[in-house]
Amino acid sequence: MSRRNYSIGVDFGTESGRALLVDVADGQEIATAVHAYANGVIDERLPESGVRLEPDWALQDPNDYLEVFKQAIPAVLAASGVDPADVIGIGVAFTACTMLPTTDDGTPLCCLPEWRAQPHAWVKLWKHHAAQDEANRLNAIARTRGEPWLDSYGGKISAEWFFPKAWQILDEAPALYAAADRLIEAADWVVWQLTGVETRNECTAGYKAIWSRRDGFPSNAFFKALDPRLERIVDEKLLRTLAPLGARAGGLTEQAARWTGLRPGTPVAVANVDAHVTLPAIGSIEPGTMVMIMGTSTCDVMVAAQQQELPDVPGMCGVVDGGIVPGMLGYEAGQSGVGDIFAWFVEHGVPPAYHQAAQRRGLGLHTLLEQEAAKLRPGESGLLALDWWNGNRSTLVDVELGGLLLGMTLATTAPEIYRALIEATAFGTREIIETLNASGVPVRRLVAAGGLPERNQLLMQIYADVTGHEIGVVRSAQAPALGAAMHGAVAAGAAAGGYADIATAARQMGGLRAERYTPIAAHSAVYDRLYAEYKLLYDYFGRGANDVMKRLRQLREEQHPAHT
Amino acid sequence: MSRRNYSIGVDFGTESGRALLVDVADGQEIATAVHAYANGVIDERLPESGVRLEPDWALQDPNDYLEVFKQAIPAVLAASGVDPADVIGIGVAFTACTMLPTTDDGTPLCCLPEWRAQPHAWVKLWKHHAAQDEANRLNAIARTRGEPWLDSYGGKISAEWFFPKAWQILDEAPALYAAADRLIEAADWVVWQLTGVETRNECTAGYKAIWSRRDGFPSNAFFKALDPRLERIVDEKLLRTLAPLGARAGGLTEQAARWTGLRPGTPVAVANVDAHVTLPAIGSIEPGTMVMIMGTSTCDVMVAAQQQELPDVPGMCGVVDGGIVPGMLGYEAGQSGVGDIFAWFVEHGVPPAYHQAAQRRGLGLHTLLEQEAAKLRPGESGLLALDWWNGNRSTLVDVELGGLLLGMTLATTAPEIYRALIEATAFGTREIIETLNASGVPVRRLVAAGGLPERNQLLMQIYADVTGHEIGVVRSAQAPALGAAMHGAVAAGAAAGGYADIATAARQMGGLRAERYTPIAAHSAVYDRLYAEYKLLYDYFGRGANDVMKRLRQLREEQHPAHT
Repeated sequence: MSRRNYSIGVDFGTESGRALLVDVADGQEIATAVHAYANGVIDERLPESGVRLEPDWALQDPNDYLEVFKQAIPAVLAASGVDPADVIGIGVAFTACTMLPTTDDGTPLCCLPEWRAQPHAWVKLWKHHAAQDEANRLNAIARTRGEPWLDSYGGKISAEWFFPKAWQILDEAPALYAAADRLIEAADWVVWQLTGVETRNECTAGYKAIWSRRDGFPSNAFFKALDPRLERIVDEKLLRTLAPLGARAGGLTEQAARWTGLRPGTPVAVANVDAHVTLPAIGSIEPGTMVMIMGTSTCDVMVAAQQQELPDVPGMCGVVDGGIVPGMLGYEAGQSGVGDIFAWFVEHGVPPAYHQAAQRRGLGLHTLLEQEAAKLRPGESGLLALDWWNGNRSTLVDVELGGLLLGMTLATTAPEIYRALIEATAFGTREIIETLNASGVPVRRLVAAGGLPERNQLLMQIYADVTGHEIGVVRSAQAPALGAAMHGAVAAGAAAGGYADIATAARQMGGLRAERYTPIAAHSAVYDRLYAEYKLLYDYFGRGANDVMKRLRQLREEQHPAHT
Repeated sequence: MSRRNYSIGVDFGTESGRALLVDVADGQEIATAVHAYANGVIDERLPESGVRLEPDWALQDPNDYLEVFKQAIPAVLAASGVDPADVIGIGVAFTACTMLPTTDDGTPLCCLPEWRAQPHAWVKLWKHHAAQDEANRLNAIARTRGEPWLDSYGGKISAEWFFPKAWQILDEAPALYAAADRLIEAADWVVWQLTGVETRNECTAGYKAIWSRRDGFPSNAFFKALDPRLERIVDEKLLRTLAPLGARAGGLTEQAARWTGLRPGTPVAVANVDAHVTLPAIGSIEPGTMVMIMGTSTCDVMVAAQQQELPDVPGMCGVVDGGIVPGMLGYEAGQSGVGDIFAWFVEHGVPPAYHQAAQRRGLGLHTLLEQEAAKLRPGESGLLALDWWNGNRSTLVDVELGGLLLGMTLATTAPEIYRALIEATAFGTREIIETLNASGVPVRRLVAAGGLPERNQLLMQIYADVTGHEIGVVRSAQAPALGAAMHGAVAAGAAAGGYADIATAARQMGGLRAERYTPIAAHSAVYDRLYAEYKLLYDYFGRGANDVMKRLRQLREEQHPAHT
C-alpha cells in the first residue's frame, strides 16, 4: 500500500469542538472525535468566582478550545492509526464573531488572576447579545456619516459583531480595555496558539469586523466619532495585514505538537468561519452555486467573480472580496429562524394526539409531523406564514419583525401549520435568491448542508419546489470540519502532498450525495402563486407600509412586568 | 299562600329541547327539563331508509320537537307540583332559519310514506349549508335588480336563510316542492301543532325570510327572476299576514293538552327566535342596550326607536321593525366564530404540558388557559389576531375570510395565543359597536348572555376593557326559555294574570346578576392602541386591499383531493 497523506480539520462549535482526520487524496473521512467544552456556554455565572452575568451575555473559556486540540486530535490519531508524519496540514473552522482580549503574547486576560473575575476578560461568544446599545449607536453614527461600507452589510452592523463587542468592553470595563494589548477572533487566537504566530484571517475580518480588501478597516475618524478612545483601535489592538484563506499561518510549535501528538512544524492554515468554510466541501467552487447551511438558522454563502463595481445586494449579511475563496467575491445572506421555528412549533403548538401517535409509532415528533404534512398538497391547507419568529436577517435586516400565520379555519390541523412554516422558510430563501438575481449575482444551483437536510426530506423537496432549483446535498455530515481540513491541505501546498489552491482541494476532497431534490412542476406552479402572496405580505409588513409588528414589540416592551 | 300564576317557555336547540316553568310574578325558575332529540342532527343518513346525505346537509326530524312537548312539559309539571290550571301561557324559542315542507293540514312531508326517503322532505336545520349555490344566485340577481331590502341584511342573504333553502328544494326535488302546500319555519310549525292554527311570526320572517313591515316580502317579480316557478311562492306556500311577537297564536288543542298535561285552551304565544327572545330576559327593553348571546358564535341584538328613515348600518345580519319587540326597530349583528375559535385552539394548538397541568390540578383546559392568560398584561404577549377562523359575519359579511395571528416569537406560549384569540373576538365586538355608533344607532350598555359568560371571567373582563363599557350578565342561565315564557305570559294577557306587553313582563320577570364587569382604565388605554392595529388589519384584509385570504381559499378548493 502506497503512503497516503492526511489532513485534520478542527471545527469549533457552540458546545463542543470536533476533529476530523481525512485522506487528502479523496476526502475520505478516516476518524472523527468530539470534545465537549467543560464550561460550555457561560451565561449565568463565571467559573470559580461565581460572578453573576447580565441577561443576554454569552461567554466561553478559551482553555476549552485548547482542550479540543489536546483531546480530539490525539483521539483521531489513535482511532485511525495514522502516522503523525503523514498528517500534512491542519485547518480550523470557528463560530464568529467569537472574540477575546489578550496580552501581546496571546495570553487571554481571563487567564490572569487579576482579571479572572471580570466578565469582560472572557471570550464573548457569537451569540453574546449584550452589545445592542453599542451596535445601535454605531449604526446611527455610520448612517449619519454616510460610511461607504454600510451597504455591504445590508445597511446594519449586528450587535453580534466585532466592534460593538469591543466597544462594550470599553464602555463597561475601560481599565480592562486598556490592559488588552490585542482584541482577537477566537478563530485566529487558536491558530496563534498552534503556531506561535498572530494572524488575522480575511473571512472573519471581512464579515465581522467591517474589513474590505479595497478599503481596509473603517477610518480612524469613524472610530473617533464613536468614542475618542477608539480612534486607533485597529492599530493598537488588531492587525492591518490580513492573511488570505488557505494561506499557511505557521507550523505547529513544539508545545502544540506535544498537545496534539502531531509533528512540530506541521503546517497550519489561517482560520476560517464555520459556515463559509463549508462551501468547498460541496466539491466545486463555482459562481452561482448558493450553499445553504441549514440548522436552527440558515446561512447562505455564494461566490461570484470579482468585478470592477461591487454589485450592491440589498439585505445581505456581507459581501467580502476573498471572504470565502481567494480571488472571488463572497456573499453571505441568512435567515434568522429556520429549524428554531419548527422546534418552537413542536414545543408550543402541537396537541397531545400527535405526541402520542409519535410515541406509539416510535417516531420523533418532527418525523411524524413531516409524514403527515407530506400527505398534503401545496395550497391544500389554505395557510400562509411569514417566517419572522426570530426577526428577518436577509433581506430586511430587521430583528423587530415577528411571525405571522394566516388563513386558519376551524378545521386547521397541526401538520398543516407545520407544513406552512416549512413553506414560509422556503419562501424566505426564494426571496434571497430573487434579490441576488435582481442584483446581478445570479443563483444557478442550490446545495444544502447542515443538520436539517439530513433530517427532513419533505423540507428539501419543498425548497426545490418553491425555488424551482434542483438541490444537491453535501456528502459529508461534518462539512465544516472537512472544509477546514481542505484548507490544511492547501496550507501544506502541492509539493508536500497537499493542493495548490482550494478549488483543486474541493474537487478532490469534496462532493455531493448521489440523491438530488428535483422540483415537481405541478407543485412549483402552485408555489409560484403562494410566493406571490408571501411577497405581498413580506413587503407590506417588512417595508414600512404597516409597521404593526414593530409597534406590538414596542408595546410588549412597555408592558413587560420588568418595566412597569 | 295565595294562588300563583306560571308560564312555560320551551327552547328548541340544536340537539335538544328544554322546558322551563317560571313564576309569572317574578320570573323565578321553578322547574326545568331537557329532552334530547332521538334523531339529533341528521347529517349522514336519513333515519329508516338510510339514504345517504351530501356534505353540508343538516336535517332534523319534526317528531323530535313534538317529543319535547310530550316529555319535557309533563316533567316540569311533575317536578314542580304546579297545578296545570295555574299555567297561564306557553311560549316557544327556536333556532332559525329551521324550516320544513308540509301538507296544508301541517303534516310534515317526511311523515308521509311516499316522501320519507326523500331528504328534502325533512326539516332543514339552521346550519344546513347546501343551498350556497342558490344563495349566490339570489344575491347576484338581487344586486342586479337593485332590490331595496338588500341593505337591511348587510348586503347579502345567507345560504342558511329561508328562500335559498326553499329554492334548493325546487332545484333538486321539484315534485316534492309541488307537493308541499306549505313551507314553514319549524318555530311556527310547533306552534301550529299546539294550537291547530297556522301563524307566522314577524321575527323569523323579518330576519330569515326578507319580510319587512313596510314592504312585506320581496315582489313576485323578484321571485320570478329567480325562477318562474317561484313567482307566487309567498301566496302559495307562506302567509302574507304575520303575527306580532307576544300575540296569542291560539289555545292548546285537546290533543296538545293530552301531550303536555296542560289544560285545553291554554294560551300559546306566536313563536320567536332563540337569540332575539333573550333580550327581554335581561329585565328591561331599552334602546342602546346591546345583548350579546355568546356561545360557539355570538349573536348581538339591540332595539332602537322607530324612525322615519331606517338607519342604514353596514354589515348587520338584519334590521327588522318589530323583529325583537313590537313597536321598535330590532337590530341583529353577529360574530361567526367565538367559542368555536377557543375550542379549536384547545383541540389543535395546546401542547401536552398544559393538558397535564390541567389534569393535575383538576381543571378543564379552558380554565387552566384562562388562569395562565389572566396573568398577562394587555399587550405583553406582542400578539394580535383577526378572529376570522369561521369567516366574518358583522361587519364584513364574508364567509371566505380566514384567521390571522401575528407577532409570534420563539418565546410565544399557548396561554399568550389563547389570550390573543379572546382579545380578537372582543375587538370584533368593538368593531360592531363602533359601526352601530357611527350609523346613528348608539350602543350605551352591554349585557352578556349565553354559555361563555358563565364560564370565562377573563373573557368578560377583556370585553369590558376593550369596549370601554360596563358589562352586565343576564341572571337566568336559560335566558331563551325565560324569554319564551315571558311571551307566554304576554299572550295570556294581563286579565289572565299575565302581562299587557313584553316590556312589563321583562321588568317583572327578567334581570341581571349583581356582578358587573367594569373597564379597567389602564387596560382600556392599551386596548385602544391594539384595537387601532386590529382595525388597520381588519380593513386591509377585509375590504379588498389584499384579498389574500380569499385567494388562498380558492387555491385550497382547487387543491383539495376531491377536486383533482
